[in-house]
Amino acid sequence: MTPDFTSLAEFRSLLAEAPGPDAAAQQAAGARNAQLTKPAGSLGRLEDLAIWYAGWQGAERPALNRPQVLIFAGNHGVTARGISAFPPEVTVQMVANFKVGGAAINQLAAVAGAELTVHALDLDRPTRDFCEAPAMNEDELLAALRCGWDAVDPQADLLVTGEMGIGNTTSAAAIALALFGGEAADWVGRGTGLDDSGVARKAAVVTDAVALHHPGTGLETLRCLGGREIVAMAGAMARARVLGIPVLLDGFICCAAAACLAAESPTALDHAVAGHASAESAHPALLEKLGKPPLLGLGLRLGEGSGAALAIPLIRAAIACLSGMATFAEAGVADG
Amino acid sequence: MTPDFTSLAEFRSLLAEAPGPDAAAQQAAGARNAQLTKPAGSLGRLEDLAIWYAGWQGAERPALNRPQVLIFAGNHGVTARGISAFPPEVTVQMVANFKVGGAAINQLAAVAGAELTVHALDLDRPTRDFCEAPAMNEDELLAALRCGWDAVDPQADLLVTGEMGIGNTTSAAAIALALFGGEAADWVGRGTGLDDSGVARKAAVVTDAVALHHPGTGLETLRCLGGREIVAMAGAMARARVLGIPVLLDGFICCAAAACLAAESPTALDHAVAGHASAESAHPALLEKLGKPPLLGLGLRLGEGSGAALAIPLIRAAIACLSGMATFAEAGVADG
Repeated sequence: MTPDFTSLAEFRSLLAEAPGPDAAAQQAAGARNAQLTKPAGSLGRLEDLAIWYAGWQGAERPALNRPQVLIFAGNHGVTARGISAFPPEVTVQMVANFKVGGAAINQLAAVAGAELTVHALDLDRPTRDFCEAPAMNEDELLAALRCGWDAVDPQADLLVTGEMGIGNTTSAAAIALALFGGEAADWVGRGTGLDDSGVARKAAVVTDAVALHHPGTGLETLRCLGGREIVAMAGAMARARVLGIPVLLDGFICCAAAACLAAESPTALDHAVAGHASAESAHPALLEKLGKPPLLGLGLRLGEGSGAALAIPLIRAAIACLSGMATFAEAGVADG
Repeated sequence: MTPDFTSLAEFRSLLAEAPGPDAAAQQAAGARNAQLTKPAGSLGRLEDLAIWYAGWQGAERPALNRPQVLIFAGNHGVTARGISAFPPEVTVQMVANFKVGGAAINQLAAVAGAELTVHALDLDRPTRDFCEAPAMNEDELLAALRCGWDAVDPQADLLVTGEMGIGNTTSAAAIALALFGGEAADWVGRGTGLDDSGVARKAAVVTDAVALHHPGTGLETLRCLGGREIVAMAGAMARARVLGIPVLLDGFICCAAAACLAAESPTALDHAVAGHASAESAHPALLEKLGKPPLLGLGLRLGEGSGAALAIPLIRAAIACLSGMATFAEAGVADG
């Protein structure tokens, strides 16, 4: 059974004390990799991925059988300030679309052989406009963390967390500014398709929000500037860390949630690899701050976990090579 | 039935006269893409890929059901000059490994849901050392083109051609130098793992080979400087072009074969997308010459079709989104 939490303090302790990967399995996988029928290093980053995964699964020859994609949806009070190209009604409409299988993530999860579930968080009760007050109180923060935490399948062997929430690149930009500093313009992008004046408005909103709040910790940043779906992603990634389930990070919003965990504990994201670099302008900089080089760079900027889901077959391929290839000795191939 | 060839002249005509994609299907796919439940352009390069594929399949909502991976193997007389980190016996040993499923490409094809077949071309009869004479005579060239041509499944809906042949990055570098000029050092890399003195020896060999031959056409370049497996890849990609089967290009050697087709006809590679940029140093420059930006850049340098096979799920994902997503109207989602 996974350890559980009833307070932010307990959540913090679980995250800080979560066990690391199995060093023996990782070492055995590395040794096996060196004997496989290929020139040393010739599978490039696939080799590192497979060895990393082996450590988290605790097996020299790991298998990927049960990837899980979780979509969290939330609504944002800050949308009243005109910071999105789409109206807030789209959040609930897209949740319905996820449920009938019509969205991009439905197709991408199916291609990746992943189970997909959708979790809508109080869509009729948007978070407070964080230019006026903290987005959530502590009970609301805990409830959203709990939603993400409980959504993780303990039997999953790879996790993607995605989101839907009109206005949530504004929330993510505010989180990034609060955690990493700089100017609002460094972290603000076009989201779903803002024009230049919209981007300027969004930057002003982000500047005001961060000036109003001075969150000192990752969890306080989530409470003041997050949306419920962002908090739930953080809760799910934290649960995965505690359970030792590897995570593929999605785009800017997912990484903002992840950054709040990293601010709580320096090992909080050891189980995570960046699935892609998105076309949301600040995502590459955020990945750089997290120290996570992306696997893919195909210009996606959709959210929903789409870029991470697209990377699942890469993990599957890496693992298949490590676990399925013959060694030089087995195949009777001369080792250069 | 596919048109057939019995001479190089007939092969050239087939390639030059191969029909292009279905413009109406491509246009319909583009119109459909614009109505799908996502912000415009938010699936990045997946959108372009899906529309490109729709044109070649001739369907507004295409499907990918039968990807094929072909591995061609050949031996090279030039290996006598010490230009590879592995001995030439490894070619036949690796063919045996492919046949029992122990190589990287076996795992990657399986993950991609692709059928894999292996075609060894006269392994006991290496091509002539092209520092002394043309690698092949015209009959040998035709036979190798024919091997590739015949290996393509006419029912396939995506093709990857891979190779195995100790010494074949030397052949590919000579082809690139003959076609695109520059210095040998621009096109020579470490292959399976040469040290600096090996790379210098390889560059001298490539310089000598290109100085000896003055091939005026793509096919003549293949005859003088190719290996049989490289010629067979060209034959297979040409057949795919004639049949309208889309191709994912693999690494440096595959792209050298493709470049010989492009030298024969400016539309010869319209059906091809670059699966990845490899870590073989000259591959990015060769992709640039071909005008093919890569989908992946994960540092692979194995050959065998591995990088292209790794990209198959990306094509599958792109097609799944185009063909499977709901439109704004179908889903009742407000279009921003």
